[in-house]
Amino acid sequence: MATYGLVEYADACPEVKAVYDDIMATRKTDWINNFWKSLAHDPVLLKRTWEDIKQIMAPGALDALTKEMIYVAVSVTNGCPYCIASHTASARKKGMTPEMFAELMSVVGMANESNRLANGYQIELDEQFK
Amino acid sequence: MATYGLVEYADACPEVKAVYDDIMATRKTDWINNFWKSLAHDPVLLKRTWEDIKQIMAPGALDALTKEMIYVAVSVTNGCPYCIASHTASARKKGMTPEMFAELMSVVGMANESNRLANGYQIELDEQFK
Amino acid sequence: MATYGLVEYADACPEVKAVYDDIMATRKTDWINNFWKSLAHDPVLLKRTWEDIKQIMAPGALDALTKEMIYVAVSVTNGCPYCIASHTASARKKGMTPEMFAELMSVVGMANESNRLANGYQIELDEQFK
Amino acid sequence: MATYGLVEYADACPEVKAVYDDIMATRKTDWINNFWKSLAHDPVLLKRTWEDIKQIMAPGALDALTKEMIYVAVSVTNGCPYCIASHTASARKKGMTPEMFAELMSVVGMANESNRLANGYQIELDEQFK
Amino acid sequence: MATYGLVEYADACPEVKAVYDDIMATRKTDWINNFWKSLAHDPVLLKRTWEDIKQIMAPGALDALTKEMIYVAVSVTNGCPYCIASHTASARKKGMTPEMFAELMSVVGMANESNRLANGYQIELDEQFK
Amino acid sequence: MATYGLVEYADACPEVKAVYDDIMATRKTDWINNFWKSLAHDPVLLKRTWEDIKQIMAPGALDALTKEMIYVAVSVTNGCPYCIASHTASARKKGMTPEMFAELMSVVGMANESNRLANGYQIELDEQFK
Repeated sequence: MATYGLVEYADACPEVKAVYDDIMATRKTDWINNFWKSLAHDPVLLKRTWEDIKQIMAPGALDALTKEMIYVAVSVTNGCPYCIASHTASARKKGMTPEMFAELMSVVGMANESNRLANGYQIELDEQFK
Repeated sequence: MATYGLVEYADACPEVKAVYDDIMATRKTDWINNFWKSLAHDPVLLKRTWEDIKQIMAPGALDALTKEMIYVAVSVTNGCPYCIASHTASARKKGMTPEMFAELMSVVGMANESNRLANGYQIELDEQFK
Repeated sequence: MATYGLVEYADACPEVKAVYDDIMATRKTDWINNFWKSLAHDPVLLKRTWEDIKQIMAPGALDALTKEMIYVAVSVTNGCPYCIASHTASARKKGMTPEMFAELMSVVGMANESNRLANGYQIELDEQFK
Repeated sequence: MATYGLVEYADACPEVKAVYDDIMATRKTDWINNFWKSLAHDPVLLKRTWEDIKQIMAPGALDALTKEMIYVAVSVTNGCPYCIASHTASARKKGMTPEMFAELMSVVGMANESNRLANGYQIELDEQFK
Repeated sequence: MATYGLVEYADACPEVKAVYDDIMATRKTDWINNFWKSLAHDPVLLKRTWEDIKQIMAPGALDALTKEMIYVAVSVTNGCPYCIASHTASARKKGMTPEMFAELMSVVGMANESNRLANGYQIELDEQFK
Repeated sequence: MATYGLVEYADACPEVKAVYDDIMATRKTDWINNFWKSLAHDPVLLKRTWEDIKQIMAPGALDALTKEMIYVAVSVTNGCPYCIASHTASARKKGMTPEMFAELMSVVGMANESNRLANGYQIELDEQFK
């Protein structure tokens, strides 16, 4: 169970309700997932985290799906079950096909492998990469 | 210094030379970076790693630049200096602009932050994500 | 299920019982948590781990609650569910308020984010920090 | 070298100069460290990261030194050399003594060890911690 | 639940069946574990991963049990529950005794601890190790 | 440079000298590496860490070389440059051949890869492994 439980909309203070409303409006959904309901015990943390994510995940030089897949790549590397489940769901909703997911996993696996080969062989950086 | 030093082309056995030749042909370059020269002490490891990377990084459902940026995201999360330098260089060569890099870093940073918030608050997975 | 099951007090050998007794006396509780019951299959590992933790977590230049929060910070960064749950419980018992927990999580999240920005931008150390 | 080099004050755009000025005023110093000069290629990332850190690291329910030591604990666990050096320097400036540092390192080491013992023995969470 | 569910033998395409048959023949078992059934949605990933593991885990300069214990050490360090459970089971089947497991865990714990002490104290490499 | 510098033998207090003497006697060498000279600022941490390592790394159910290779596997996974260099040197001194090292690296790379595939595909544990 979440450390301090979940803050439901009906029980939320106005600052929290305002963030919940903005999440639902921005994402065009009618529900709030547990991540936000857990953070809501600290309205300052909730607001800052939401505003950062809203700014960062908006399409820009990279499109929204690419950003979502990068989020999945990090979450898989760190082994965060909640984040893997929620961001994989988001990526699929934004158009990630099974073929794209399989290639994403292949790259993530390979990078994790070669990171350790580079560490283990104590490889010096080539002049060309400096 | 790399654990067993670097295997230069001139000193390589035929199996290693064949991999080096394929790397240069595939990448359209005339040099081999230290990663491969370090692994070349074990021709089996060298060949397997190269063939895996060649297969995985080829454009498919995801384009080559997206794959390279995912590689960077993993390497940054793991903190592998060699891999960060070499794959950032590759991504720039394939067209990653400073704006794209800045957004990539923003997503990687945010994902690393929220992974820990999800861990720390012991958040349960929503039914909708199962 | 724990790899080799749990060693209950009634079934423990004298060396294990002695450690269990010291844990309960030191912590002023009347039960032993699963961490110790799992390690107890190896009395040497059990004794060494307990004596290390007892020495390290005792108040010194840092007070006991600060140490417990640092433990939580590491466990959250590594994503160890057992350790997060048990040390968050300990920290709350030692006086961590919801406000302190929220600030702890904010720092842990921010540090995890900025660690990756420093990695990703390949930032050189300033002379002033050497 | 930092991926896109460092943005010096004299060369900075007004948005970046404003952040630099606020960093120096808040920290009561007359120089900017490389972390900020590297991020400054993206004024949006620079401003967001600085405002988050400024808010998070200000004394609140936890004092400034405790926050700085938690930052060090995370950076040491992740193995980020830049962050370890810069935040250890900050913590010492804020009053961390060698005795406090030694205890901090002892707790960080122990937590990293016991996190893996909990993982490795596949220990189930006690009812009391749920 | 696995992201795209599990591919059972009866429903598998010929390429997947061929890999399943080789896994069962190589391992002398009559069942396929969920790891392979999950990857099987991408026959290319399945085949590459299986052939790599088959080549890497075969006895060579290191015996099969030593390799399995190294696999466990990495999985415990990364905190991957599936891999810890499945490779601990494999290692026990190949002859790992409770005493060997306890020593394995002790080394993994100690290495994780001392890795952070080396990071935290910012220790320079001795000339003798270069 | 190490955070508080290195404690040389000539300048050490009796408690530290006793540990240094035991390290040299146990390892049959006439020098102390920087890891110990850095920790020596805290004689309690120095003594505890050395006694733990001495106990853990002694041959038992696992031989000394196997333990050293497991140490390398963890250090490579965590990316600790000091620990990789020093424990690879130790393992070579204890008889690790280039062939054994190459197989060690292959297993470490593969485990890091498959840990992420298991995470990413959200694979449920088979009944047989519970």
